[in-house]
Amino acid sequence: MVDAAVPSTDTPWEVSELNRLLAAPARPEPAYTLTPPGGGKLIGFGGGVPDAPTFPVAQLEEAVRTVLRREPAPALEYLAGGPIGVPALRQTIIDRIEPEPGVPLGIENVTITSGAAAALDNIFRTFLDPGDILLVEAPTYMGAIRNARATQCRFVPIPMDGEGLIVEALEETLATLAARGERPKLLYTIPTFHNPGGTTMPLERRERLLEVCARHRVLVVEDDAYGELRFTEERLPSLFTLAQGRGVIRCGTVSKTIAPGLRIGWIKGQKPIIDALVRMRFDNGTSPFVQRVVVAYVEAGAFEPHVEKMRGVYKAKFETMDAALGEHLGRYATWTEPKGGFFIWVKLPPGVDSVDLQRRAWAAGLTFVPGIACYTDGSGHDHIRLAFSSVSHDEIREGIARLGRIVEEALAAR
Amino acid sequence: MVDAAVPSTDTPWEVSELNRLLAAPARPEPAYTLTPPGGGKLIGFGGGVPDAPTFPVAQLEEAVRTVLRREPAPALEYLAGGPIGVPALRQTIIDRIEPEPGVPLGIENVTITSGAAAALDNIFRTFLDPGDILLVEAPTYMGAIRNARATQCRFVPIPMDGEGLIVEALEETLATLAARGERPKLLYTIPTFHNPGGTTMPLERRERLLEVCARHRVLVVEDDAYGELRFTEERLPSLFTLAQGRGVIRCGTVSKTIAPGLRIGWIKGQKPIIDALVRMRFDNGTSPFVQRVVVAYVEAGAFEPHVEKMRGVYKAKFETMDAALGEHLGRYATWTEPKGGFFIWVKLPPGVDSVDLQRRAWAAGLTFVPGIACYTDGSGHDHIRLAFSSVSHDEIREGIARLGRIVEEALAAR
Repeated sequence: MVDAAVPSTDTPWEVSELNRLLAAPARPEPAYTLTPPGGGKLIGFGGGVPDAPTFPVAQLEEAVRTVLRREPAPALEYLAGGPIGVPALRQTIIDRIEPEPGVPLGIENVTITSGAAAALDNIFRTFLDPGDILLVEAPTYMGAIRNARATQCRFVPIPMDGEGLIVEALEETLATLAARGERPKLLYTIPTFHNPGGTTMPLERRERLLEVCARHRVLVVEDDAYGELRFTEERLPSLFTLAQGRGVIRCGTVSKTIAPGLRIGWIKGQKPIIDALVRMRFDNGTSPFVQRVVVAYVEAGAFEPHVEKMRGVYKAKFETMDAALGEHLGRYATWTEPKGGFFIWVKLPPGVDSVDLQRRAWAAGLTFVPGIACYTDGSGHDHIRLAFSSVSHDEIREGIARLGRIVEEALAAR
Repeated sequence: MVDAAVPSTDTPWEVSELNRLLAAPARPEPAYTLTPPGGGKLIGFGGGVPDAPTFPVAQLEEAVRTVLRREPAPALEYLAGGPIGVPALRQTIIDRIEPEPGVPLGIENVTITSGAAAALDNIFRTFLDPGDILLVEAPTYMGAIRNARATQCRFVPIPMDGEGLIVEALEETLATLAARGERPKLLYTIPTFHNPGGTTMPLERRERLLEVCARHRVLVVEDDAYGELRFTEERLPSLFTLAQGRGVIRCGTVSKTIAPGLRIGWIKGQKPIIDALVRMRFDNGTSPFVQRVVVAYVEAGAFEPHVEKMRGVYKAKFETMDAALGEHLGRYATWTEPKGGFFIWVKLPPGVDSVDLQRRAWAAGLTFVPGIACYTDGSGHDHIRLAFSSVSHDEIREGIARLGRIVEEALAAR
């Protein structure tokens, strides 16, 4: 039909007027793209996508059957009690899906969102007016950048090292801002299995981070989409647990542990914070049908063994990619060795640019995320993010071999 | 846990600071409430809630089984192609769920949202900056008011009569605004089975409305959540159809025809408009699992006969409520006789206030929506909205009898 490309003389309304009508954050901006030109099968090291062959299909079908027999009306009705979410799922998150040992939580401290993506949108929209400062790690999760950008906030990046966000740098930034009379509202951080950085913040640094944020009255947004998918026995307390829930908002999801197609995430926080977030939810809440399916799935005892299995699946894929990197890029690059999650963060050799390498990768039948997508200030030309989660071991070996070749090409073209 | 009500001396972070941190639209405002104090079973004439006993549970279970056998990976994976939605569902909406005869639509003209609520949120957020003018009918859908308010837009109400929005009043308003150099971006309208007004705009008025909006370059947002649930054979073309899709954005949903718990709605529009809307979606899209379940449900031939059945169900409930109103309020009030949808809009007798009546209704075990919820300017004290959709025939008769008694009480208390 009706397309902007088709000029028309009799039209009652010109699509060319669209830019005048759009709100400021909706106007298109030239940016990097993650979409390769043309089609064709590519080896996908791009998105944080889980392993599809291991989706627990039979158990989810059983959970659907349970819900539609046991409680069809509330599952198919509008959410009773509004967009905050199904009480049974909120309790299940507290008890089974994401326990916070020692923090006395009630269902009033949890709201359900359409994945962690909608959780971040809900948080940023609730707290950030245009011009407000959002502190972010550099690098940080590219989805959070896109998401927060819609609020027209200002990003202030804080550098990281091999143990996550550098707390001294945060303090310096806060002092500089305070001297200018500026006060950031939120710090967005991924302390565990950082996306893209692969780092995990040690306990002592977590405690110092909380102390600094409390002193400066900065609310901490802790994103923990990958925390359950650890490759070792080590399990550090979350920032939320360490702070006893005070001054920390925490986001989680079953997108990485069960399946992203369910679109189930959540936010934990103090009750007045949850209340404010729910006031800014305009979708009448996430599907109560799917929320109840997740409850039935966990109740049936399917969740914990599945997560345990997935830890092994992703650890094995990480090891395959780590070994392949050693073989094909050992001479040129360095990379993180995450203790969990989906990503390896590769530092490219001098003179190789992540955007140029992305073009070469597409030509070689390969995708990844160029580092610039993970920074708010245009840096990141020296890094790429590789996801090992959705690809097979054979694809990992083949893809990293191709990556080695295009890095050599890029070096030769300097 | 941690609650604002519990003062603490050792807290690292005070919830009392929350208001300083909240974005302007997130700050709580004193408003009417639709929630009765206390619990207890009430007869619910409040929400636009469908009839739960007729949910097509068995057919939906069959559709789930089809999807999990046929296409488990794409159903449980992140949406391929991004938040615009599953292509098969967008095509099914065009072909079967909401056909627009004579308008050549492609899937690029449709995006899937989490119900019509999220569709409106997506539209308002994409077009309205703080201070922008949104033209609304007076009265209008209360959810749309709440939704648009988050953008900090200015509402300009346009009066209605028994045939919907008064186009001459719209023209006058546009002229007045133009004289002040002000240009509204959007008109939000419900031309068919108006919520709450119960009116349906005749064909000739639809055409004039489109002509005026085209001349003034106002984009029309057509909300049609109830259009399929008609009580007569008459089916008027949508504004979108009449305009051949130009300058009109149209929202639909299966919440009223299949089940709200699925959270499936959509927006139709010109491709550049859909593209802009999708840029402002931050939830990674609505569940591809549920989207595919709706496709399988329609493919199995279940949709059309179910909607046909529901037309009869709601028509019978309307007739019961209309007759009961005649019996118990005929002497005091007047009301609309909608040709479809879920609502009757009652004009109260002079001296009876909708907010006062709501308090009496709660005491009498009854809920409805006071008219003030449906206006942007504080008017509506003289109306209430009654939904006949979710209640049984016995509840309708009993509830309207109670309504008659509390109206008499209110009249006696004048």
